[in-house]
Amino acid sequence: MSIQQTLERVLQQVRAGIHPSDLADLVDELSDQQKQELFLLLSDAEAAAIIEEMEGFDQAAVLRLLTRHRASAILKEMAADDAADLVGELPPDEAKELLNLIEEDEAQDIKELLRYPEDTAGGLMTTDFVALPEDLTIRQAFDQLRRLAPSPEVAYYIYVVDESGRLTGVLSLRDLIATGDDVRLAEVMRRSPMTISVEMNQEEVARLVSRYDLLALPVVEADGRLLGVVTVDDILDVMVEEATEDILHLGRAGSVELTNILSMPFTALVRRRLPWLLISVVGGTLSGGVITAYESVLQSVITLAVFIPVIMDMGGAVGTQSSTIVVRALSTGHLALRDLGRYLLHELKVGSTLGLSAGLLAGLVAALWKGESELGLVVGLSAFCALTVAAIVGAIVPFVWRLMRVDPAVAASPFVTAIKDITGLLIYFSFASLLLDHI
Amino acid sequence: MSIQQTLERVLQQVRAGIHPSDLADLVDELSDQQKQELFLLLSDAEAAAIIEEMEGFDQAAVLRLLTRHRASAILKEMAADDAADLVGELPPDEAKELLNLIEEDEAQDIKELLRYPEDTAGGLMTTDFVALPEDLTIRQAFDQLRRLAPSPEVAYYIYVVDESGRLTGVLSLRDLIATGDDVRLAEVMRRSPMTISVEMNQEEVARLVSRYDLLALPVVEADGRLLGVVTVDDILDVMVEEATEDILHLGRAGSVELTNILSMPFTALVRRRLPWLLISVVGGTLSGGVITAYESVLQSVITLAVFIPVIMDMGGAVGTQSSTIVVRALSTGHLALRDLGRYLLHELKVGSTLGLSAGLLAGLVAALWKGESELGLVVGLSAFCALTVAAIVGAIVPFVWRLMRVDPAVAASPFVTAIKDITGLLIYFSFASLLLDHI
Repeated sequence: MSIQQTLERVLQQVRAGIHPSDLADLVDELSDQQKQELFLLLSDAEAAAIIEEMEGFDQAAVLRLLTRHRASAILKEMAADDAADLVGELPPDEAKELLNLIEEDEAQDIKELLRYPEDTAGGLMTTDFVALPEDLTIRQAFDQLRRLAPSPEVAYYIYVVDESGRLTGVLSLRDLIATGDDVRLAEVMRRSPMTISVEMNQEEVARLVSRYDLLALPVVEADGRLLGVVTVDDILDVMVEEATEDILHLGRAGSVELTNILSMPFTALVRRRLPWLLISVVGGTLSGGVITAYESVLQSVITLAVFIPVIMDMGGAVGTQSSTIVVRALSTGHLALRDLGRYLLHELKVGSTLGLSAGLLAGLVAALWKGESELGLVVGLSAFCALTVAAIVGAIVPFVWRLMRVDPAVAASPFVTAIKDITGLLIYFSFASLLLDHI
Repeated sequence: MSIQQTLERVLQQVRAGIHPSDLADLVDELSDQQKQELFLLLSDAEAAAIIEEMEGFDQAAVLRLLTRHRASAILKEMAADDAADLVGELPPDEAKELLNLIEEDEAQDIKELLRYPEDTAGGLMTTDFVALPEDLTIRQAFDQLRRLAPSPEVAYYIYVVDESGRLTGVLSLRDLIATGDDVRLAEVMRRSPMTISVEMNQEEVARLVSRYDLLALPVVEADGRLLGVVTVDDILDVMVEEATEDILHLGRAGSVELTNILSMPFTALVRRRLPWLLISVVGGTLSGGVITAYESVLQSVITLAVFIPVIMDMGGAVGTQSSTIVVRALSTGHLALRDLGRYLLHELKVGSTLGLSAGLLAGLVAALWKGESELGLVVGLSAFCALTVAAIVGAIVPFVWRLMRVDPAVAASPFVTAIKDITGLLIYFSFASLLLDHI
């Protein structure tokens, strides 16, 4: 397709009212030159709506294709929180230059938002909310709403503030509709609404919004001044982000950013994955130490080496299962520290049953394959004990980290792996020394 | 604390306007007898609000403590979708008995909702939405809203239907406020709004809501009749649920339900965890086969056995890292099938760099510990090659499953583990046969 045809197709879609989120995907596929030409043809508002839906990394790239002047005009059309996120992606000098081109008070809003870390309530909140004074009547409030035309995410709650901007109450649009025209807001608003501080971590904010089924949560200063509002659509993104972080940590991949996985500099990826790998060198060496201690046993029955992977892999499966279940149950609140005793008992029953089944199978395989029933007994018994221990270790380690206020998702896996290997091999070689005649 | 004191404390909290979600936690801590006495003191509406916030398993237990008559009265006060979820938790005969005690049309609503599988749009949607005819004026619409007093989650959008109940448009409360009193809904509504079918899987529904930042999505029949609405607060729960499922599958723990993790019958847990464990017996045995093939090599240099865990653990760390990253990137849409080639090249660079670093370390450990530089060379070279292969295997397997339309989160881990162990040990013993003099 020629540039001209591609552009016409995209422009058609823009004008046909396609959702900006879909347009952003289309734009992603264009070459830099095509992007440049397309944005020349779009209005500032159209461009802003599309850029808002792009990933931070791509947003900055598009903005760089435009003149400073145009970029600042588009930035002005964006919601303040989105604009702040975008400016945060730019190198400091480019960011400063752009902000200088924007009107004083809007630039101030953006700078204000940039002060807060990205993963806090301050970093999530928008400053485009509806705050009205207490002595307004319902009729006047309606007039204000008509004038302000707030965006859908923030339109549902109306916040009521006193003359120094302190939050005193909240009304929903539903309350507004259900109330007579001449009543004052102060008379119908719900007082002392739930608020959060600007420093609250985004995971905690998400927990609150989801627990109380909220559409938005007001963010206040220590003195009660209303600073912004965190809306449920931002919370959806946070939940995907936090779940992804937990999954990557459990997979020992560290905090890899998936948003630009293909363009991420590979040194960054290596830096995040290497530490976890080096821990496994240490764990593996310690397990090797166990084998060294039993080298003479191994020398006389070399076939014992054949079942080292079986013991390690089975222990790995069971240990990973229990640690994954406990990490997830702790982080979703389905288990608490006080449940440790009860859960361990539960896991002991489950783990020993799993150990019994897998031990029988592994023992049978060993006996039939190598034609030695004694070897089968050693493998079977060891598997039973090693798996029971692995199940318990997998369950205890996350509780211990939680007790020490370390995120179990980050720290559980490498320790569970090392401990189950060392104990598993110890059990295996102990049974071998005890039960095999020819040693 | 005596029963009386406990009850008084809880009742105080109910009357003090504590959020039902917090009350549900309080009630959870009570004994059955205390729960029974407490619910005698609560109004139907108060009881319904608290029960709505409890987990399905506990809801059914509380309902069983009450008389049939009281239970049906409380059920009537609950939102239709919550009531249906609760009735779905009961044994069929109890459910039927309860529904018989509820008025015809409300029971019909609940039965209707029970027909849809829990993890579809039909299972998620509520039937308490606002649908108004096209020829209503804005003023009449306001009157209707006042009369209906819809719950906050569904109050923001007003759906417009024709005389046979087919969805023809949608308005937001904001649109309503911004429009003159005598205009008809048909004139200002947005036509052909985004809709979903009743069978759509909840994961897909969540993807749409989050992608388009929606507060609610209408669910329609094939003929366009409006059946219900899925709201964003239910989507938050779905996202936690789906992320948890992915995490548990990656940890090879199957679809364990965390909601009643402590009370879950242990046979159910065993049944879900055992299959993955048995796969690891097979994988371990195949790795054992590699060792069997090199038994004579091992017999002459028994120290080789010491580094088997090192090779396996390092391969495990790298393989798990790449498969976790790819599984997550595929499921969040940050990678697509067409990116396979580019990503493998990327992973090859990262994997070989990781292999080089860890190989140097492991080789050094081997050489210094055992005082044999040749052994160090074998361990180092093997680690380098085995880790590079593990990185590639970890990245390819999820792509292959996705290509075969199997969920990579479910199926990736056991295969990556087996393949990286078999290849890792093959590489290790091949280098040993090649490079060690005394074999």
